[in-house]
Amino acid sequence: MSSMQLQATETLGIVGGGTVGGGIVEILEKNRDLFTKMTGKEINVARLAVRDLGKARDFDTPATTVVSDNFEDILVDGSIDTVVEVMGGTSLAKDVVIKSLKSGKNVVTANKALIADCLVEIENTVNEVNANRAEGEKPVEFRYEAAVCGGIPIISSLQGDFVGDEITMCTGIINGCTNYMLTEMDKNGLSYDESLQGASELGYAEADPTLDVGGFDARSKLKILMRLAFGIDVEEDEISCKGIPELTKEDFEYAAMLGGTIKLTGVAKKISDSDVAAFVSPTYLDNSDTLASISGATNAVEIQSKNLVRSTYTGQGAGRYPTANSCINDIIKVARGDINPLPFNSKGPGTLKFVNDFKSKFYIRMRYRDQNGITKDCGNLCEENNIGIYSILQNPIKNRNDACFVVMTDSVKLSQVKKFVAQIEGLDWCKGEVFFMPVLRDEDL
Amino acid sequence: MSSMQLQATETLGIVGGGTVGGGIVEILEKNRDLFTKMTGKEINVARLAVRDLGKARDFDTPATTVVSDNFEDILVDGSIDTVVEVMGGTSLAKDVVIKSLKSGKNVVTANKALIADCLVEIENTVNEVNANRAEGEKPVEFRYEAAVCGGIPIISSLQGDFVGDEITMCTGIINGCTNYMLTEMDKNGLSYDESLQGASELGYAEADPTLDVGGFDARSKLKILMRLAFGIDVEEDEISCKGIPELTKEDFEYAAMLGGTIKLTGVAKKISDSDVAAFVSPTYLDNSDTLASISGATNAVEIQSKNLVRSTYTGQGAGRYPTANSCINDIIKVARGDINPLPFNSKGPGTLKFVNDFKSKFYIRMRYRDQNGITKDCGNLCEENNIGIYSILQNPIKNRNDACFVVMTDSVKLSQVKKFVAQIEGLDWCKGEVFFMPVLRDEDL
Repeated sequence: MSSMQLQATETLGIVGGGTVGGGIVEILEKNRDLFTKMTGKEINVARLAVRDLGKARDFDTPATTVVSDNFEDILVDGSIDTVVEVMGGTSLAKDVVIKSLKSGKNVVTANKALIADCLVEIENTVNEVNANRAEGEKPVEFRYEAAVCGGIPIISSLQGDFVGDEITMCTGIINGCTNYMLTEMDKNGLSYDESLQGASELGYAEADPTLDVGGFDARSKLKILMRLAFGIDVEEDEISCKGIPELTKEDFEYAAMLGGTIKLTGVAKKISDSDVAAFVSPTYLDNSDTLASISGATNAVEIQSKNLVRSTYTGQGAGRYPTANSCINDIIKVARGDINPLPFNSKGPGTLKFVNDFKSKFYIRMRYRDQNGITKDCGNLCEENNIGIYSILQNPIKNRNDACFVVMTDSVKLSQVKKFVAQIEGLDWCKGEVFFMPVLRDEDL
Repeated sequence: MSSMQLQATETLGIVGGGTVGGGIVEILEKNRDLFTKMTGKEINVARLAVRDLGKARDFDTPATTVVSDNFEDILVDGSIDTVVEVMGGTSLAKDVVIKSLKSGKNVVTANKALIADCLVEIENTVNEVNANRAEGEKPVEFRYEAAVCGGIPIISSLQGDFVGDEITMCTGIINGCTNYMLTEMDKNGLSYDESLQGASELGYAEADPTLDVGGFDARSKLKILMRLAFGIDVEEDEISCKGIPELTKEDFEYAAMLGGTIKLTGVAKKISDSDVAAFVSPTYLDNSDTLASISGATNAVEIQSKNLVRSTYTGQGAGRYPTANSCINDIIKVARGDINPLPFNSKGPGTLKFVNDFKSKFYIRMRYRDQNGITKDCGNLCEENNIGIYSILQNPIKNRNDACFVVMTDSVKLSQVKKFVAQIEGLDWCKGEVFFMPVLRDEDL
């Protein structure tokens, strides 16, 4: 009787009693009978570890759950099968995840920063632990669906839907805060500062919004997606990263003139049999593009591949229930015995390498004091740098001391554009920094 | 040695040597080593059954594969673990699927028509076979990812991503042929006949295009999606189905005036705690809608749910490699031992019931001979049927004997609209049939 009951139980220890942890406890309680039916196991939260025991919680903890402020209680509790890490951060959370795996517990986590930081170490730990499992023993599971684009099942899709396919490009609108801001700037003509204030009021922006607006949050996600899509490990800071603070109302005006809009995208693309290029940057997109229609805090990931051609997943990138829902899906998969022993690399080690340069059409916006010779200077430097000009856009000048114009280039290398821009910035008519961004649907990107 | 080898092999019998079957054989051969590494098993196509042995094939069959024109050979071959049914049709294919399951073989199929026709019978067979499995024996698997929207993993998503969630609405652009045609009519001003000819030339339309243009193909898919999303079985012909042949250039002109376009959608929505309404129909959508941006033969399925809010999956709905890719994903899941014993109903039997009526704003287009009193007649009948008018659209009249105008209604029931339309059609100024369609983003839909 006792052994039967043991077999029919999935015992969880949750680390983190915040927004996501509360959502998980709620969904588990609400669906208790259903989940038992689905998995054949009763799923119980035996322990919940929180930072501050005195803090009020906005969810009910089941009477049988032991709440403590020491996560080590979970590690030493032999009855716990699976640790759900939803505390965030990278120091204590790393300890929780690595130690849990080493003690033979499955891990479900929503922690993007941790995975981006410690992907290889986590992978090595999973492999090590599983190599030492007795024959026939179920491998430990590491699942992290909620870590990238909260409510979009992009991790399990990349793990399972492309096994016989070859991914050639991955393009994501993977930061809700900036997509909300850019939507406001585009649709409602807000300035950068106004849209940031709106994002703060709605809780989309952190007190320090640098990680979001600077593109760094998107880059962490891109790094993880690149591992899954292309099997390559790249240091985050090797990936070119440009955020949105340089974008102005004029950029949206020029984008509208071109029939498009501007989105912050993370892009990784196979540019040859051996190389993958990647960047995070605002990019210009035509309005007819599905990605241009992704508005507000919504996220989207588009995968281009040989068999499936183009697949796009759109949904909520954050929030209590979308994120908790993804953790629940992982918990159910673990409980019902799904096996996924290679969480980062279902195809095994790749041979592709990362290169930090790529070809694209570019949008280059220059701010200037009006004087003779500007177009000539610009044309000369384009020629010198072998940059073909596709078109020049110039709205009627309102202020001769502070005007701007835009050059749309033919397909050129990022490195060429950077050199050109540095030279323009050295000219006396050029005011401030030149802004440039790739055009997304350039076939040569 | 021999028993080890047996354990490490997944032996397939493929029924159908056409477009999809060829794609599967190709992908399996190309990824032989990778798949062995991923699943721990060598995946072999032991047998291939085709209708006509003499027909030339556009793919290479492995030397070890026995090709025959009798699928019974596969059933009686005890070495075959999994039958891949990609022959299409509903009579012979049904035999293959049911007999394969009964003989304890897993089934992977791409056959939408068969599942829409025989869902309950297949489910009962799976349940029966698995109830009689010895304890500890792996249940037989029935997988059909490719059957709905070829390259979009919507089946596994509905099976796995919403386990603790509650789906409230499912909206799909789930027929590539008609979406291609409607895109051409919208973007390039083609007539219905011109766009159908284009679709035929590109191979999107069958010789008899009725199943596509009449909405019946979409309805088969919607029926399957409804089972997964809401747990209800509904006879296909109970679902209101309107195709696209009635659409005219004027409809696209009026849609453009309203800032939107027209898509053939399959919609199922929970309209109360107990009821689900559903229909297949052209629908009006605003251009800002992500679904409005789905162009050409692309498919998309949007799921609205309590936790994930709104998730959309976009991709290829048909074609050799997208469809074969989905079959391959199923084959890999079967080979590596994933378990999915309730292929249609991960949450168990539902309590929802289908009702064939729903509320929505409607677009109603009337063709008429100009005379006095038309607006008055229309207004009177609207009042009589308790239909609020939201707006009336009338382009400048070019031909007084054949003009048309559009009434956009407030939120009303389909049954009210049908009554109103029948009355209008009885008036002497009304030419031909009145066309009506729902407005997609009506909150009351």
